[in-house]
Amino acid sequence: MGTPSGPTPDKIMQLGLGFWGSKTLLSAVELGLFSILSGAPTTAEDLRKKLGLHSRSAVDFFDALVALGMLTRKDGLYANTPEADLFLDRKKPSYVGGLLEMANARLYPFWAKLTDGLKTGKPQNEIAGGEDLFAALYAEPARLKQFLSAMTGISMGAGKAAAVAFPWKNYKSFIDVGCAQGGFTAQVALAHPHLTGGGFDLPKVRPIFEEYMKSFRLQDQMTFYPGSFFDDPLPKADVIVMGHILHDWDLAEKRMLIKKAYDALPSGGAYIAYEAIIDDERKQNAFGLLMSLNMLIETQGGFDFTGANCQGWMKEAGFKDTRVVPLVGPDSMVIGIK
Amino acid sequence: MGTPSGPTPDKIMQLGLGFWGSKTLLSAVELGLFSILSGAPTTAEDLRKKLGLHSRSAVDFFDALVALGMLTRKDGLYANTPEADLFLDRKKPSYVGGLLEMANARLYPFWAKLTDGLKTGKPQNEIAGGEDLFAALYAEPARLKQFLSAMTGISMGAGKAAAVAFPWKNYKSFIDVGCAQGGFTAQVALAHPHLTGGGFDLPKVRPIFEEYMKSFRLQDQMTFYPGSFFDDPLPKADVIVMGHILHDWDLAEKRMLIKKAYDALPSGGAYIAYEAIIDDERKQNAFGLLMSLNMLIETQGGFDFTGANCQGWMKEAGFKDTRVVPLVGPDSMVIGIK
Repeated sequence: MGTPSGPTPDKIMQLGLGFWGSKTLLSAVELGLFSILSGAPTTAEDLRKKLGLHSRSAVDFFDALVALGMLTRKDGLYANTPEADLFLDRKKPSYVGGLLEMANARLYPFWAKLTDGLKTGKPQNEIAGGEDLFAALYAEPARLKQFLSAMTGISMGAGKAAAVAFPWKNYKSFIDVGCAQGGFTAQVALAHPHLTGGGFDLPKVRPIFEEYMKSFRLQDQMTFYPGSFFDDPLPKADVIVMGHILHDWDLAEKRMLIKKAYDALPSGGAYIAYEAIIDDERKQNAFGLLMSLNMLIETQGGFDFTGANCQGWMKEAGFKDTRVVPLVGPDSMVIGIK
Repeated sequence: MGTPSGPTPDKIMQLGLGFWGSKTLLSAVELGLFSILSGAPTTAEDLRKKLGLHSRSAVDFFDALVALGMLTRKDGLYANTPEADLFLDRKKPSYVGGLLEMANARLYPFWAKLTDGLKTGKPQNEIAGGEDLFAALYAEPARLKQFLSAMTGISMGAGKAAAVAFPWKNYKSFIDVGCAQGGFTAQVALAHPHLTGGGFDLPKVRPIFEEYMKSFRLQDQMTFYPGSFFDDPLPKADVIVMGHILHDWDLAEKRMLIKKAYDALPSGGAYIAYEAIIDDERKQNAFGLLMSLNMLIETQGGFDFTGANCQGWMKEAGFKDTRVVPLVGPDSMVIGIK
């Protein structure tokens, strides 16, 4: 007796059925489970009633979240893990569940058509008919707010990391281009009160950005600059930031955006492009490569890229020095000095 | 400069967007990518053409599979990992991709309604109207074959492990109850040529079981026994096996099935129930707990259970000695000796 030698299909099955755990977390966020549990450990039965769940599978649902590392259970009381409490409680400004709400409502069903996307090269979301994603998202207020809040989910961690990993003390101002709600803007501004500047995005974003800045008492430090990075020049600043912007666009559009950043900077100014930058060998950063498939699902021509790709485009635009700096998880920033 | 201290949302994001990697593997299996690559390392361009993919995202798709550990890439040639080659090449009898084909075609879209399932306690698949899953699956030949092949995907690893982890030399015969294609049956029979017996399942399963046994040259060793475990007694044997059977049914049905196993065994005979048995603390085996949510999606009353639960039911049915033996990955077997 013993364990079998040789390869087993276990790893394949875990990956192939990985959507189970993923969708379980997405449903928990949709139901507001972490907001309910925040600060108040709760029995299974109380939690079930507060969420309006049927008794059949509620405890399996809660215990699955324990086994997935999103909840704890002690003496029959469920509680948030520290990370879930900080990032998945809707009442906290550190909430990043907006991305997961959007993933639950939009991306999960759209990804069901991944095979069609791979065969056609065309997006599989609201713009499958040929529209621009952002025109479609920004046209409807509820969808706009969900999208902007989602962007905070994917940029807050990078913002916290970039606040310490970049020498902000050497600069006086920054503009976060395509700032959305301001998830990155706020983290950098909180850590560096000497910085002025703010966020640049389409005019409809203004009230959502300003509300978010107020939640951190940053409304006097950070200003909203309305505009379109297709139609307008960028506001001038010592540092221009683009987070998860370049990957939305095709190669010609990427080059145009990098050139506009160059034009907005003084000599010695810094351009920071941060995303799930793919490793140059394209063998390690699975999340970055999958994000590129998400750009297939979501955009007409977008794709993610390696640090070497981005440094090459920056050099073409005139940047003197470039480097790649890891942030957190799959994210890195590519820095170009003018 | 440095990395940020304190909690980051990275782990939450990785889990919440885990469906990306999962669906990428499911699409690769759907497209037959691993069957095409088997034995013939291929350039990205050749692979893209063979799969009929658009050029936009094909290389991102292939490199994502490299980063996910399902392919390798060396000198520009893509190849299967040893596990992918053995388990995801449709031409090999060791193929387990049937489960992933079914996950891609059925489970991924059904799980989009997990929240509805949790609120209502009702299945979210073809039987949302109230029918029995197996009646629905078995009514249509193509769906039946996909389902039976899928069951091989989830039982072959356990079969390989159980072939060494149980003292088969002390027994002369076994019946695999609800055998489906015979994924478990075949692994045990191959390792122990002295064993007689075979598989018990609904009559429509016979040709698919017999074809699968022939692929291993087991047709003389393993016999198909047609019947329904609701309407008929089980064939008598020294060992009765049920793999991923008990979890399909509610508690009264589970107890009935355990009693029928008891009745089919001689004194000293062994009953083996193997599944993704949940740890008794219900804190570790995420896959088992998620499988129980899959039973919510798929069945009217099914649920997964702990080793302690199952040993308790076995004791109630009259089994003298019971124990839990880990197999591979999330699977264990619960053994009852009459």
